[in-house]
Amino acid sequence: MLSTMQDFPLTISAIFRHGRNVFGGSEVVTFEGESCRRASFAQVAERADRLASALARLGIREGDRVGTFAWNNQEHLEAYMAVPSMGAVLHTLNLRLFPEQLTYIANHAEDRVILLDATLIPLLARVAAELKTVEQFVIIGDGDTSPLGSNVLSYEELLAAEPGGYDYPEVDERSAAAMCYTSGTTGNPKGVVYSHRSTYLHSMAATSGTTFGLTERDRILPIVPMFHANAWGLPYAGWMTGSDFVMPNRFLQGEPLCKLIMAERPTVSGAVPTVWNDILAYADKNKDSVDLTSLRLVPCGGSAVPRSLMEAFQERHGVRIVQAWGMTETSPIAAVAMTPKSAPPEEDFEWRAKTGRVVAGVELRITADDGSVLPWDGEAVGEIEVRGPWITASYYKDDDPQKFHDGWLRTGDVGCVESNGFIQITDRAKDVIKSGGEWISSVELEGTLMGHPAVKEAAVVGVPDERWDERPLACVVLKEGEDTSVEDLKGFLADRVAKWWLPERWTFIEEVPKTSVGKFDKKVLRARYADGELEVKET
Amino acid sequence: MLSTMQDFPLTISAIFRHGRNVFGGSEVVTFEGESCRRASFAQVAERADRLASALARLGIREGDRVGTFAWNNQEHLEAYMAVPSMGAVLHTLNLRLFPEQLTYIANHAEDRVILLDATLIPLLARVAAELKTVEQFVIIGDGDTSPLGSNVLSYEELLAAEPGGYDYPEVDERSAAAMCYTSGTTGNPKGVVYSHRSTYLHSMAATSGTTFGLTERDRILPIVPMFHANAWGLPYAGWMTGSDFVMPNRFLQGEPLCKLIMAERPTVSGAVPTVWNDILAYADKNKDSVDLTSLRLVPCGGSAVPRSLMEAFQERHGVRIVQAWGMTETSPIAAVAMTPKSAPPEEDFEWRAKTGRVVAGVELRITADDGSVLPWDGEAVGEIEVRGPWITASYYKDDDPQKFHDGWLRTGDVGCVESNGFIQITDRAKDVIKSGGEWISSVELEGTLMGHPAVKEAAVVGVPDERWDERPLACVVLKEGEDTSVEDLKGFLADRVAKWWLPERWTFIEEVPKTSVGKFDKKVLRARYADGELEVKET
Repeated sequence: MLSTMQDFPLTISAIFRHGRNVFGGSEVVTFEGESCRRASFAQVAERADRLASALARLGIREGDRVGTFAWNNQEHLEAYMAVPSMGAVLHTLNLRLFPEQLTYIANHAEDRVILLDATLIPLLARVAAELKTVEQFVIIGDGDTSPLGSNVLSYEELLAAEPGGYDYPEVDERSAAAMCYTSGTTGNPKGVVYSHRSTYLHSMAATSGTTFGLTERDRILPIVPMFHANAWGLPYAGWMTGSDFVMPNRFLQGEPLCKLIMAERPTVSGAVPTVWNDILAYADKNKDSVDLTSLRLVPCGGSAVPRSLMEAFQERHGVRIVQAWGMTETSPIAAVAMTPKSAPPEEDFEWRAKTGRVVAGVELRITADDGSVLPWDGEAVGEIEVRGPWITASYYKDDDPQKFHDGWLRTGDVGCVESNGFIQITDRAKDVIKSGGEWISSVELEGTLMGHPAVKEAAVVGVPDERWDERPLACVVLKEGEDTSVEDLKGFLADRVAKWWLPERWTFIEEVPKTSVGKFDKKVLRARYADGELEVKET
Repeated sequence: MLSTMQDFPLTISAIFRHGRNVFGGSEVVTFEGESCRRASFAQVAERADRLASALARLGIREGDRVGTFAWNNQEHLEAYMAVPSMGAVLHTLNLRLFPEQLTYIANHAEDRVILLDATLIPLLARVAAELKTVEQFVIIGDGDTSPLGSNVLSYEELLAAEPGGYDYPEVDERSAAAMCYTSGTTGNPKGVVYSHRSTYLHSMAATSGTTFGLTERDRILPIVPMFHANAWGLPYAGWMTGSDFVMPNRFLQGEPLCKLIMAERPTVSGAVPTVWNDILAYADKNKDSVDLTSLRLVPCGGSAVPRSLMEAFQERHGVRIVQAWGMTETSPIAAVAMTPKSAPPEEDFEWRAKTGRVVAGVELRITADDGSVLPWDGEAVGEIEVRGPWITASYYKDDDPQKFHDGWLRTGDVGCVESNGFIQITDRAKDVIKSGGEWISSVELEGTLMGHPAVKEAAVVGVPDERWDERPLACVVLKEGEDTSVEDLKGFLADRVAKWWLPERWTFIEEVPKTSVGKFDKKVLRARYADGELEVKET
């Protein structure tokens, strides 16, 4: 039996229309280092129309890929609205990729135009000659464009030349809206192609009271890059709810971010733990002058969020950090660690320190090595698999069948699930430590170590061991000016984790190597250990 | 270009799975007049499985209609989960319909089974013999079933006989999930058939921060009946977010509702203005003992909400009533009157007294008599048309082409729209008053009159006038024990509305006649006036 309801498509153009029609007075603020520039949603929408019109004039047709190589700013948001709404595909390029990855990705996606921040010209110029399908670079802002060659146009001039308005097509909700490559897997980066439908549904989910509970009264500061899993969906979700945007542009260190927060008083902000570490360091050093209390909710993810970081923000700065979990393949929101109502107040941080509670719209299971499904009992550990309307089913022109399992995405994360849907990730599948046949959670060891007052970062990797097959190696980065001993750190751990988890091997390093999206790159650490490059102290 | 995302269907079974898997500990409380009975989501889900299994055993197959004739209680919620999840169609029958309408609807929908509260047996028994397609009545609770004849089964016995568990089918998201008939139009009631998709999307919208912002910490008291436009979507939305439910059952008067609110401390509650009037009267009379402050948000709709009612609740009881707008054909949420952030505090009630701001997912326009689209300027008045994924495109087996216009639903409501998407409805299209070629808003006259301390209800209808074609007739219901004069009321109005709007004709009546869903039935008033049945005072 069929329903009588309208078959109305879920599209980014519908999100775009809603924000411009209903929230024309909301504002997009872009930080320029000292001051901010401002535009209303109505102005941003009008400029997005001109962008669509200009791209069409450049020959961009439905399905064509338009790349962006840009910071989080007003123009990037204009591209987020215009490109999918005109039926083209927004391809956000990651500024932090190695040149060969960037070249591979732009060529693989066959980007025809790249919208490029002028400040990033030198970065892109390194590979410009290798980009076989790019016909035009469109430069946002002013800069020396000579390193790019002749196919260069000015974003502002293009917009100014258009008459205004654009007749957006009706697109199928299952057609491509945007793409993002992930370098999390081995081999070449792999492309995830978001549909209008998946983005629409993900945006709705992000506005729910159980996730970010966005309203028109919020002011969103997306520090997480717009080239990284859609800045966790904040741009579309916030446009849908008429929240203001405070865009940090390229000013991503602790000091300018603290100043921006005080000047513009955002209520919601998303970033990876590393950024919050920088903000915390600056805020602690300047605690008499820094006020971060406008922030009502800070989703944090990308890697495990140490409990000590959350406690420090809560206790010293009145800011609530909430851990969230997801990945490029999951759009990305899959779990958010809101403390369950059944938890007594003293357990608050215990729950918040878990990875997250699965959100409505995402289904989740854990599987053993043999593919069998494990119970949600808080104990059984296996690989986490997810499915749902904003989860990817495949990669763009690139088979990777071992990533999928009977219609479920294998996330590559390993952990357990409580009976109330709370996930605790203990490791990446490729980084698990199995000692004498039992799991040791590197994530928990790292989170605990990062609670030590002298420790800035800690990465724990499995290294070969004759007796136990594998044992943990702790790689510790100390805070500037701090000093401590392996004995002290080991004693600190001994009070907090199982005795047989305690690493025997320790090394102090300058910095944890990271991937292009800021995750700990443990294969580099394991390789350095194997090559004898680390100065290891055994205990 | 196609996306790589999963083609995962949006279904009520997915909502059902999420609530049971993640929020098994949330509770459903059902009021029994003196005390409450309680069940966890896990228990409700387990019983819903048994209900699905029992219905299948009775021969219910995918697409078959299962009627409910029930109050808001745990068993009704079980039916909400089980029936659509098993692929059948939940048909919520309105207890307040005239017998002939009820008969027409059950026969037109071809209900095969009706789940029936024992307390309602006498009401349904009047028409039982006329229900041609109903094979079984399944009785919830205990009562004398003899008036229904022999095809009677016990809900509890059916559930007890099943082994537990149910293997739910995968259904197409566009297939029918539920149906509801509307008697708002002329002629026979007309059926709206909700799809799994429309219900899923509507539920997501109801959880958004811009609408009800539901979370696991909410406790929802749905006073609006589950047979009336899905209780405004609260059952599915709250199940999705793990909110507790406080079900009022058949205890819908001011006193028991106040007692229930104090005992169970709900945070969100939806009901029509008439119910809030009753609650207010009881709470005012017992202000030393009544405490309603657990309520953080009270969506109110179904008919225009007088500003005086909202002010009284806010000022005397600390309860925030927010007007919402929609209808059976819109699932129903289409607009919610959250004060815009740009409004200064002193304008708060001005905005809240408007009909609502269009929600994301619903598109809205106003059209003139000639079908042309009018601007959102707060002045142009026309019929409101809506479209979107939870708006109906047609009626079930019943053409009514004049209700649709180029893919938009004609709502039958007339009003204007501000530039920020705020609607102000001035009338039902069939109730408009056009005096000397100009509109007079009966809704505004009524809302203003209901702000007079002696007035309980007021309905204003257009009546023929030789000079002006039409003029307003004010029909006023006084509060118990109150007295006032037409001169006093007219003077009260004169300070608040345009002079030429002031009615010359006045009548005091015992009660405003209402439709089966509690709306003012103005055609009855006009007919009584035409028949000379009203005692009219002319001024």
